Amino acid sequence: MTTFGDRLTEQTRLRANPLCVGFDPFPDLIPTLFGPKGELETIERFFSAVIEELAGQVPIVKPQIGLFEPWGADGVALTGKLARFAHDQDLMVLMDAKRGDIGSTAEGYARAFLGANAPTPCDCLTVNPYLGLDSLKPFADAAKANDKGIAVLVRTSNPGAKDFQDIDCSGAPLWVRVGEQLVGLQDDLMGQSDFSSLMVVCGATWPSEAKRLRAILPKTLFLVPGYGAQGGAAKDALAGLVLGPSGHEGGVVSSSRAILYNKAAAEAQSLSAWRTAFQQTLQASISELRAASADVVGAR
Amino acid sequence: MTTFGDRLTEQTRLRANPLCVGFDPFPDLIPTLFGPKGELETIERFFSAVIEELAGQVPIVKPQIGLFEPWGADGVALTGKLARFAHDQDLMVLMDAKRGDIGSTAEGYARAFLGANAPTPCDCLTVNPYLGLDSLKPFADAAKANDKGIAVLVRTSNPGAKDFQDIDCSGAPLWVRVGEQLVGLQDDLMGQSDFSSLMVVCGATWPSEAKRLRAILPKTLFLVPGYGAQGGAAKDALAGLVLGPSGHEGGVVSSSRAILYNKAAAEAQSLSAWRTAFQQTLQASISELRAASADVVGAR
Repeated sequence: MTTFGDRLTEQTRLRANPLCVGFDPFPDLIPTLFGPKGELETIERFFSAVIEELAGQVPIVKPQIGLFEPWGADGVALTGKLARFAHDQDLMVLMDAKRGDIGSTAEGYARAFLGANAPTPCDCLTVNPYLGLDSLKPFADAAKANDKGIAVLVRTSNPGAKDFQDIDCSGAPLWVRVGEQLVGLQDDLMGQSDFSSLMVVCGATWPSEAKRLRAILPKTLFLVPGYGAQGGAAKDALAGLVLGPSGHEGGVVSSSRAILYNKAAAEAQSLSAWRTAFQQTLQASISELRAASADVVGAR
Repeated sequence: MTTFGDRLTEQTRLRANPLCVGFDPFPDLIPTLFGPKGELETIERFFSAVIEELAGQVPIVKPQIGLFEPWGADGVALTGKLARFAHDQDLMVLMDAKRGDIGSTAEGYARAFLGANAPTPCDCLTVNPYLGLDSLKPFADAAKANDKGIAVLVRTSNPGAKDFQDIDCSGAPLWVRVGEQLVGLQDDLMGQSDFSSLMVVCGATWPSEAKRLRAILPKTLFLVPGYGAQGGAAKDALAGLVLGPSGHEGGVVSSSRAILYNKAAAEAQSLSAWRTAFQQTLQASISELRAASADVVGAR
């Protein structure tokens, strides 16, 4: 098997777009044709249909486990089930769990998500760096052993990111210091391609920050959340990506609600009408990202 | 119902000790008399017996969900089951999950653990502050609405804590800046007693840091991990606690492996022999903490 970094690079080239579709279950927004509101079976039917529509179109999907955990063990079981179904449909899986702990507990989380027989399997797991580099190591070790990746939170797109991530640390904000400390992990997780199996989370609403982080971590894959619903424009979202030579390299751009819950699909009265409306929104997002990518590459 | 802060203060006074026993399942360390190694049923039998031994002795227990998640949905279900059994036995539950996210995802995690009908219930949840104050608000709101608490990671006890938590931020380390930003939450979560439903995690191996954090957050409850196995001594562990007037106030001190897996209990050939050995270790830890507390109070 090839490394996560190599696989994701190959997939973004193959699909010719860097779109990562987030799986955020909001019971009130799922069309009623998938079943009674708030039932886990409805959520399963909805995301199974979403996976079928995404297959062959995008490189990767991102289940947001924090929105499944309110259903407890059943929600966690469904997260794992959807991840396996996505794999069956040739979609990579980035699990957004933002885990972080030390020592044997970090090893526990790593087994749960990145282990060879993980019950909630994924190709890459989001992790929180606050506890320090030794808290990231068990995740990185599991990633290396099993051809998986980790995506470290560096600069997020929420207003509160300024509270701690932007604090001045001797001439640079904390998030820059975090990025600087990740160079060793980047290098340790290199595969055969130009990119590491290390990802960094860098919000789409901060394009200048993305460029600064890219300079620090040239071989790291970027996970850019917040494209679409959170207000990030396509060009801004691509700021940290490398984009060349194929025009679709260096990371992925995540969108959830804008793709899952667009108005036309929500109002569909039949599954086939929903499929048509969903596919239109999906292709519009993909086209927008491809056009923005061509613009950025062309402007060089 | 009273606030979490009031209940924990009452319980530490009632039990006359601040011991929080961590539930860290290590299959290799659980005595074979509880069943075949590595099976979840063995872990359930073991921690059920532990809960029966702790009932009436300590104020609170701390399930480490990161060590249950390797069993996937079944592990999460067991975490919830043990939490409910602990409640039945009049033990408070501090869920060590170190969650952290923004907006609706943070609300999802809050519903999962702090909601009125949470599938994995607890009295208090550990959370990670890296994403900023707006990432803590949904947890704090749920805590306030449902008489629960949150325990924010501030200064942890692992060596890697120096990587980011100790970075100098204009004359003070990051963890001090985090502590300073929590004053508003402390005040917002006050109940009737002297203590807030806000906790801060501050490692036992750093007593001078604990005193500094106490000066910043005088009404906040401290969660001090690392007493016992991680090498924190009893007096150091108590450094951030207030200790008066009852001598057992201002937070809890957490110990896991040193209490769960002591040698005599591990070698027990019968459940009654295990109960005797477990109880001896437990009482020795409680006595050590009481003696250290009396020393600290007496030295004033």
